[in-house]
Amino acid sequence: MASPPLSLSLSIIFLLLSPLISSASSQPIIRLPTETTNRKSTVDGDDLYCSSWHLAVETNNAGSWKTIPTRCRSYVQDYMTGQRYTSDSEIAANFSLAHASSVEIGRDGKDAWVFDVDETLLSNLKYYEDRGFGSEIFDEDSFNAWVDLAVAPAIPASLKLYNEVKQMGFKIFLLTGRSESQRNVTAKNLLFAGYTGWERLILRGHSDEGTKATAYKSERRSELLDEGYRIQGNSGDQWSDLQGFAVAKRSFKLPNPMYYIA
Amino acid sequence: MASPPLSLSLSIIFLLLSPLISSASSQPIIRLPTETTNRKSTVDGDDLYCSSWHLAVETNNAGSWKTIPTRCRSYVQDYMTGQRYTSDSEIAANFSLAHASSVEIGRDGKDAWVFDVDETLLSNLKYYEDRGFGSEIFDEDSFNAWVDLAVAPAIPASLKLYNEVKQMGFKIFLLTGRSESQRNVTAKNLLFAGYTGWERLILRGHSDEGTKATAYKSERRSELLDEGYRIQGNSGDQWSDLQGFAVAKRSFKLPNPMYYIA
Repeated sequence: MASPPLSLSLSIIFLLLSPLISSASSQPIIRLPTETTNRKSTVDGDDLYCSSWHLAVETNNAGSWKTIPTRCRSYVQDYMTGQRYTSDSEIAANFSLAHASSVEIGRDGKDAWVFDVDETLLSNLKYYEDRGFGSEIFDEDSFNAWVDLAVAPAIPASLKLYNEVKQMGFKIFLLTGRSESQRNVTAKNLLFAGYTGWERLILRGHSDEGTKATAYKSERRSELLDEGYRIQGNSGDQWSDLQGFAVAKRSFKLPNPMYYIA
Repeated sequence: MASPPLSLSLSIIFLLLSPLISSASSQPIIRLPTETTNRKSTVDGDDLYCSSWHLAVETNNAGSWKTIPTRCRSYVQDYMTGQRYTSDSEIAANFSLAHASSVEIGRDGKDAWVFDVDETLLSNLKYYEDRGFGSEIFDEDSFNAWVDLAVAPAIPASLKLYNEVKQMGFKIFLLTGRSESQRNVTAKNLLFAGYTGWERLILRGHSDEGTKATAYKSERRSELLDEGYRIQGNSGDQWSDLQGFAVAKRSFKLPNPMYYIA
């Protein structure tokens, strides 16, 4: 409680200051900013709306989107920089590990776990902090420049999971939407962040250009199946990492309210 | 703010009363109740944990489970009886409607929308309120007795969506895990709650006994495809309503932290 989310702090301040608040609950639950009659309603309405919007993103109800809703900038910032993102990532990793532990690892070395890279193993929060946490349209040039720096840190819960499934004997496949031209910097960044011992790093080649993420990733997983691998688990922050065909026995959706990849 | 969630109220009370609070943020984020040193930590730790557990349920990361975690009873109660469930249901319905509006309805009457029944069209909250909001193992006899009463109310956002997609010209198929023996009471309850004009109510027949929900529902959807229907949308509170084969063009996951159906 030393650093509660901004919206909660504001809620508490307004609770203490404003006698108007007790009448607010009879208002419609979802309000547009223009409909609100005081600052308190805006804060409350935005937080409730943005929580529901975020759930819709995480369940894929929201479908395709380009930028986060303007009113949700503070929500996404609070979420990504506060305890919730850490906690949600940890619980996702815990359920992944529980599943991994239930798999009887064969002696043939064909039990595989697929990880996406960005916002799954590596955090690009530093990049998105400077771009309104997803408020701005994705800019490929500046993102590629960030990728070239190879300084994205690990998501701690994912690094722990990665090491645990590797220790268990899973073969680890990294399946990323990054381009083949970014192979060296990507490997460099992964090592910098503490990831070692993957079986294969799979990136988009020339023939994958223009292919949607779901199709590209499904095709690559399908090739792993053709090689005799059993894809026991798949971790990704995008539904396009997890859906399509040749899906894993269990898929794990990591949180990401900042961007959407079709 | 007239009726903030219990946990928020407690947070505020503790914020006002306890100077110990400012040191709490240095504790590990996920704590077991036995690890907590004071009541404040328990409340906070539980709320954070249960929020993350709930997200894991809604994204299907949690996989199969029998009862909600004991420490999450208050969270689930607050969620289901407060603004969040209403808001999350509304946003899910809004995204569903946006998709429905984007469909070009054919003149052949073959555009279909599939709805699950329990916790999708009808709310059994009254039943679960008496059973700890999912804290108790599912009891088929008492649930069937509740179903026989045929008094479950509509989930308001779903009733609105139902009427809107019906108005647009979608054929509505109700695909439920309820048994064929419950056909009459189910139709009676749906009418009581305000639902009218469905194309077909599909229930589990004798041949479906012992079939897992995902397989049963996929088979029934597949039969609709064989009849020439285009399943443009599917609304359900369980992933087993939405996954498998013959899946809809877009699927919409309604919130439900109270129970899981494999």
